[in-house]
Amino acid sequence: MTKKGPVIGVFDSGVGGLTVLRELLLQVPQADYLYFGDTARLPYGSKSAETVAKYAISATQYLQSHGAEHLVIACNTATAMALDAIVRATPKNISVLGVIEPGAENAAASSKSRKVVVIATEGTCNSHAYQRALLQRGVEAREKACPLFVPLVEEGWTDHSVTEQVAHLYLDDLFNADFAAADALVLGCTHYPLLKPLLRRVVPANVAIVDSAEATAKCMAVSLGASDGHSIEPSVKFFATDSVEKFRRAGGKFLGRNIENVVHVDIET
Amino acid sequence: MTKKGPVIGVFDSGVGGLTVLRELLLQVPQADYLYFGDTARLPYGSKSAETVAKYAISATQYLQSHGAEHLVIACNTATAMALDAIVRATPKNISVLGVIEPGAENAAASSKSRKVVVIATEGTCNSHAYQRALLQRGVEAREKACPLFVPLVEEGWTDHSVTEQVAHLYLDDLFNADFAAADALVLGCTHYPLLKPLLRRVVPANVAIVDSAEATAKCMAVSLGASDGHSIEPSVKFFATDSVEKFRRAGGKFLGRNIENVVHVDIET
Repeated sequence: MTKKGPVIGVFDSGVGGLTVLRELLLQVPQADYLYFGDTARLPYGSKSAETVAKYAISATQYLQSHGAEHLVIACNTATAMALDAIVRATPKNISVLGVIEPGAENAAASSKSRKVVVIATEGTCNSHAYQRALLQRGVEAREKACPLFVPLVEEGWTDHSVTEQVAHLYLDDLFNADFAAADALVLGCTHYPLLKPLLRRVVPANVAIVDSAEATAKCMAVSLGASDGHSIEPSVKFFATDSVEKFRRAGGKFLGRNIENVVHVDIET
Repeated sequence: MTKKGPVIGVFDSGVGGLTVLRELLLQVPQADYLYFGDTARLPYGSKSAETVAKYAISATQYLQSHGAEHLVIACNTATAMALDAIVRATPKNISVLGVIEPGAENAAASSKSRKVVVIATEGTCNSHAYQRALLQRGVEAREKACPLFVPLVEEGWTDHSVTEQVAHLYLDDLFNADFAAADALVLGCTHYPLLKPLLRRVVPANVAIVDSAEATAKCMAVSLGASDGHSIEPSVKFFATDSVEKFRRAGGKFLGRNIENVVHVDIET
């Protein structure tokens, strides 16, 4: 008899966190998943820490009330601005994993020069959460907010000449002066993995591109222990605070497969 | 003795509606103003009608509870998706003016060919509110969602070559075929007036650029009757659901002057 797998609740401000869920499904297939996209209140990237914490806590409580035994804060901004508040608001028997520590760990492991560049939303950059997490690992970070990347990805322009120009405008002067030797670029926003091929053309060839989604899934896999090897298809249930139809439509390209099973949540905070 | 001026409550999802307030201050200086920016829940442009209606009604009720005798729905998306719901939720003695009817009226007045192009958010376009309002005036409209314009304006790139390329990508194929004779461009989003000089270079020279903010202020001026000529400085009080500091910083360029007097509102819906 196979034991019932753990239930992992994945929280994000919208559909971007589906890039994290996608990695979790690959690396932790023995779990079942609940995904909460707070699409009625996105984006978090330009909002204040108090507002982000309030929204994130209400969402993670919703996931707990639906059976989540582990929480993954798939939103970089929510992790950066509200992870401590979420942990304080969560019972001790439920683990809470953000995307920043795993991302920083991965970047530190791949950087020989001990200098990296982090790109993220305004909120994540202003919190300096990546900078602190990297400094604890002996790595210096230069942070850069790239507010147009999310709307460009949402417009579907992931391989567009306009996006490439914007990427050059944001990134060209980062790998110089004190950071001329920087050898890793941390994608500190869940939308950015969709820009990986384009960013590969923009940043110097020796720079490793570090994706927090992969690192976070790996961290969860390690903490839960190896799968029992059964190739059972994990169940996934989706919750969205705005239209389920829009969630389904927009989410597919982030998850890399069609999305069914979306429930609308009318959340009160 | 001068009579006390009317109190006008202006509602928007964020700071964009300050372009409407700016026009109101010019054209209706005899009023006092309350401005509500729902910055914790913006943007509305990509959300569903139900969500937008819920947010807009809670905000306009807040304005009424603070003394608003007239309501201006300065957000095109909220007007397009929720004006009827707002009117139904508002007592009969409080007038409700959206930005779409005045904008459509102005466009109809300026179009000789009876063909116009409307640019707006996804939500406003999908509602076809401008198309209906223009058709009632015998004018055919082609609507086009321009989702990157708001983030480009918010990035401050109002006169940037990237923005001009994006404008060409969005607009170049609109003034052709059935709409080759279109002679007006309606700016159906409160952020777009900041792009007026750039858009002037992108659209054909014979196309009039119609700004709903100006048209809405004019409509309010007409409905309230002429000012008594006293040049009293209108009082303006601002409410924001996210950080007041961010509201102040971001709002200045939309209002065209410094913003003080912002109160944080923790709204429950």
